[in-house]
Amino acid sequence: MRARDLLADFPTVGLDSPVIDAARMLADQDLPGIIVVGDDGTPFTILPGTEVLRLAVPAYCQDDPALARVVDEAHADTFLNALDRRTVREALPKRQRELPITDPDATVLELAALMARTRSPLVAIVGDGRLQGAVTLQALLDRMLAA
Amino acid sequence: MRARDLLADFPTVGLDSPVIDAARMLADQDLPGIIVVGDDGTPFTILPGTEVLRLAVPAYCQDDPALARVVDEAHADTFLNALDRRTVREALPKRQRELPITDPDATVLELAALMARTRSPLVAIVGDGRLQGAVTLQALLDRMLAA
Repeated sequence: MRARDLLADFPTVGLDSPVIDAARMLADQDLPGIIVVGDDGTPFTILPGTEVLRLAVPAYCQDDPALARVVDEAHADTFLNALDRRTVREALPKRQRELPITDPDATVLELAALMARTRSPLVAIVGDGRLQGAVTLQALLDRMLAA
Repeated sequence: MRARDLLADFPTVGLDSPVIDAARMLADQDLPGIIVVGDDGTPFTILPGTEVLRLAVPAYCQDDPALARVVDEAHADTFLNALDRRTVREALPKRQRELPITDPDATVLELAALMARTRSPLVAIVGDGRLQGAVTLQALLDRMLAA
């Protein structure tokens, strides 16, 4: 059992897509995360759902629970509005971490270790220089528990 | 709009539940994570799906991609077997981090900031000294995008 046996097609967003479109895709299709592709169609980064959410949270609230608490309710409900024109490229975190990307030969154990280490419920599979699909935590667990 | 308006019942596991049961619950019910409760029924910790997966990955493979790659395929497919008798308590990480737990008065922005900061697609809501339910990333995004 290798990544190639577990992967499935997965939707992608481009770097110049609006953040709001990425959030909507995540919500509407109930995805565990988003694959952001560059102009060449290969993954530029993978964003777990909580990272997509982070793109939508004002910086001044991210690390200070007290500030998020005092924002008045009406404002809190509409904070997404400010994102209307922001692109994924503009919102991406500056620091680059290890990305949950591997190749079609990865074993089940390798996929599990990669998801655990990068805390991503989604791994992109790249082979022959292009995106082949993705393996989700759900698909991996289903396979592991069926064994 | 407050946490109390977004929360829903959410299944829990006890500290002495087998890890394999937690993994099975996550997979079968397609949950974004698990709420682990102590003997008094209040949340002891919240484990995002990737942390549940981490419980199932041998320590020697977690931080070394090369080791996970060289484990032979047959062994990689069955590494979960060793977990049969391990409990959640035994498998929990030693270090305690900020937990994604808040109260029913939390605003939408507060919930979003908490999920982003703790990287948890799941927040437990505790009020009146007991677990009231949980807010998922999915429920929060649905609400934010409908606004």
